[in-house]
Amino acid sequence: MSLQPKSIKSWTPVANSSPATLEERDIPAKTPAADDVDVKVLYCGVCASDVTALDGESGPLVENAVYGHEVVGEVVAVGPEAEGIKVGDIVGIGAQSDCCRTCEFCEEHNDQFCAKNTFSISLPFGKYQRGPADGEFPHGGFAKFWRGPSRFAVKIPSGLDPAVAAPLLCAGVTVYSPMLHYGVGTRAMRVGVVGIGGLGHLAIQFAKAMGARVTAISRGTGKKDDALALGADEYISTSSDLASDFKGHERSLDLIICTINPPELEASSYIPLLRPRGTFVVLGLIQKDFTLSPMALLMGASGVAASAIGSPDELRQMFDLAVKHNIRPWITKYNFDDVNLAIEDFRAGKPRFRFVLVNTDNGGSMA
Amino acid sequence: MSLQPKSIKSWTPVANSSPATLEERDIPAKTPAADDVDVKVLYCGVCASDVTALDGESGPLVENAVYGHEVVGEVVAVGPEAEGIKVGDIVGIGAQSDCCRTCEFCEEHNDQFCAKNTFSISLPFGKYQRGPADGEFPHGGFAKFWRGPSRFAVKIPSGLDPAVAAPLLCAGVTVYSPMLHYGVGTRAMRVGVVGIGGLGHLAIQFAKAMGARVTAISRGTGKKDDALALGADEYISTSSDLASDFKGHERSLDLIICTINPPELEASSYIPLLRPRGTFVVLGLIQKDFTLSPMALLMGASGVAASAIGSPDELRQMFDLAVKHNIRPWITKYNFDDVNLAIEDFRAGKPRFRFVLVNTDNGGSMA
Repeated sequence: MSLQPKSIKSWTPVANSSPATLEERDIPAKTPAADDVDVKVLYCGVCASDVTALDGESGPLVENAVYGHEVVGEVVAVGPEAEGIKVGDIVGIGAQSDCCRTCEFCEEHNDQFCAKNTFSISLPFGKYQRGPADGEFPHGGFAKFWRGPSRFAVKIPSGLDPAVAAPLLCAGVTVYSPMLHYGVGTRAMRVGVVGIGGLGHLAIQFAKAMGARVTAISRGTGKKDDALALGADEYISTSSDLASDFKGHERSLDLIICTINPPELEASSYIPLLRPRGTFVVLGLIQKDFTLSPMALLMGASGVAASAIGSPDELRQMFDLAVKHNIRPWITKYNFDDVNLAIEDFRAGKPRFRFVLVNTDNGGSMA
Repeated sequence: MSLQPKSIKSWTPVANSSPATLEERDIPAKTPAADDVDVKVLYCGVCASDVTALDGESGPLVENAVYGHEVVGEVVAVGPEAEGIKVGDIVGIGAQSDCCRTCEFCEEHNDQFCAKNTFSISLPFGKYQRGPADGEFPHGGFAKFWRGPSRFAVKIPSGLDPAVAAPLLCAGVTVYSPMLHYGVGTRAMRVGVVGIGGLGHLAIQFAKAMGARVTAISRGTGKKDDALALGADEYISTSSDLASDFKGHERSLDLIICTINPPELEASSYIPLLRPRGTFVVLGLIQKDFTLSPMALLMGASGVAASAIGSPDELRQMFDLAVKHNIRPWITKYNFDDVNLAIEDFRAGKPRFRFVLVNTDNGGSMA
């Protein structure tokens, strides 16, 4: 079956709109490669990095930019060299759409570390760097169809509602990958989750499913009931004085998954919470440097790290875990026709905890 | 056999000397505990933290302070509850002399993380917190005898020259412990060692013995021949412009062991050297905060950590490895009677790479 179509109806930025809005437009599809698949988009999650890119925070807007990198849909065509995917499969595409295939990281299936990593959305600094589409900007899932390399289209297991699977493709794997790496599930661990939002509400669920004791950490008490409902064992309410908020909780956490995105991160305030050999992992796209005391890390041999997204292999593992433990993002659906309302609500901080856009005319369900 | 003696001839600071010097004086021995051992000191290494404590950088000098925490000697008496040690054994005592025994870290034999950790030298903030000596300052190995808990007196294997073993007790385990923790030896790893001195020259040897490829990183080219002789595979010469020094070495190291002690650490300059999921581990006692970019850590999921000393169990493992792989600190010996000369030479940066003081009248050998 040959790859279709030549153009794709997509939601792209209205020129010079402020705040930026999207409009439906037919834009040229990616030049097809032999390993590409065409996916009829059913659902696409809305992630903060879509909205900040639209708002110009990732640089000048690309012409015909298409955002959306939690794409779920049905495979409608496969190239002759597409692997592991057939027409009719329900697949998901996350934040990464391509890699070089030949470096050591690609060979180890740690695709996310490839120096030629291509993100799934149209960013000024990110083009395809391989194959017939070399030099083209990728297009995300705010569209009727998605086309891209089969390597990054991961099958959604039948036990998982495809709409609910969408937020796992970026938010889910972003919290799952560091937990896997830092050994959650391999021994008794106490995990802290800072920020109870799109990422945090999944971090609580994954940490619990992996057998950890979970402490949710969030400003005020507004998220306490949700955190406990999601499975947290404990809740620490924070104020503007973290040092006093954390009194009595010193050395209580082996791993802290920090999902917040403040302009400036008070990383050093969290260090006393770490148990020896503990790690504070930053997931946010925080532009400003933070300061850290080597002496504060020293006697506990603790550390600060960051993490971003995950590999297709990790996506597969994560989906299996989600099915097994009934991990479910809490989502609100918007019809794709209401994408601008969804973005407005997103900017207003309304997600509890994740928005999913629905292509009803492609067969996506609003129910 | 009962514990002897009631006082110990020790080298303690001359009041108000500047630069501070030591003099021999009889000082009261630690109140004996049932699990103590008395050790006739043969050798004691000189570590930077002994000299900085003597120079007042760790707070006001304690009365009758005794430094020295790379103590090697012969057991001459054991208390009735001393474990695993008998008279005549050659043992070593490192930077830690006591812990609470009952917390989870002590129970897991991660004694170095005990909140009631007692250092081996007389520091204004560190007293024994347990047993009949509760509230007394510990005394280090710049003395004829050492008395303390048997738990921290680790047997030196017969295959290791006791004089050469001394620097392993602090410098050795300080570099060995993080290598063990970060998986050197469990897979092919590339280890960078920043600073070729007391710690760095051991880090190169341990990393090689554990199977890593080793890159030595040091200012200028003065240490290049030594680094290669110690086993380094590669040498990066640094200048005041680390960014340009590291060009062409990006993503080349899984683990960086940073042994330097600058007033301010340019931690962020080393991050580009890290391979994905790599860690930059700071071992120095660096008082000033450093700044770090979360974004620089993000895509490589890399991290910055610190580490200090190691547990008695790690000391034992390290000694076995040192015997097996013929790891040998490069030492210069000084007779204890010349302790002030040793300290003067230490302050002048003369160690290549470690000084060991010798109690010849106790049987220590200057040869």
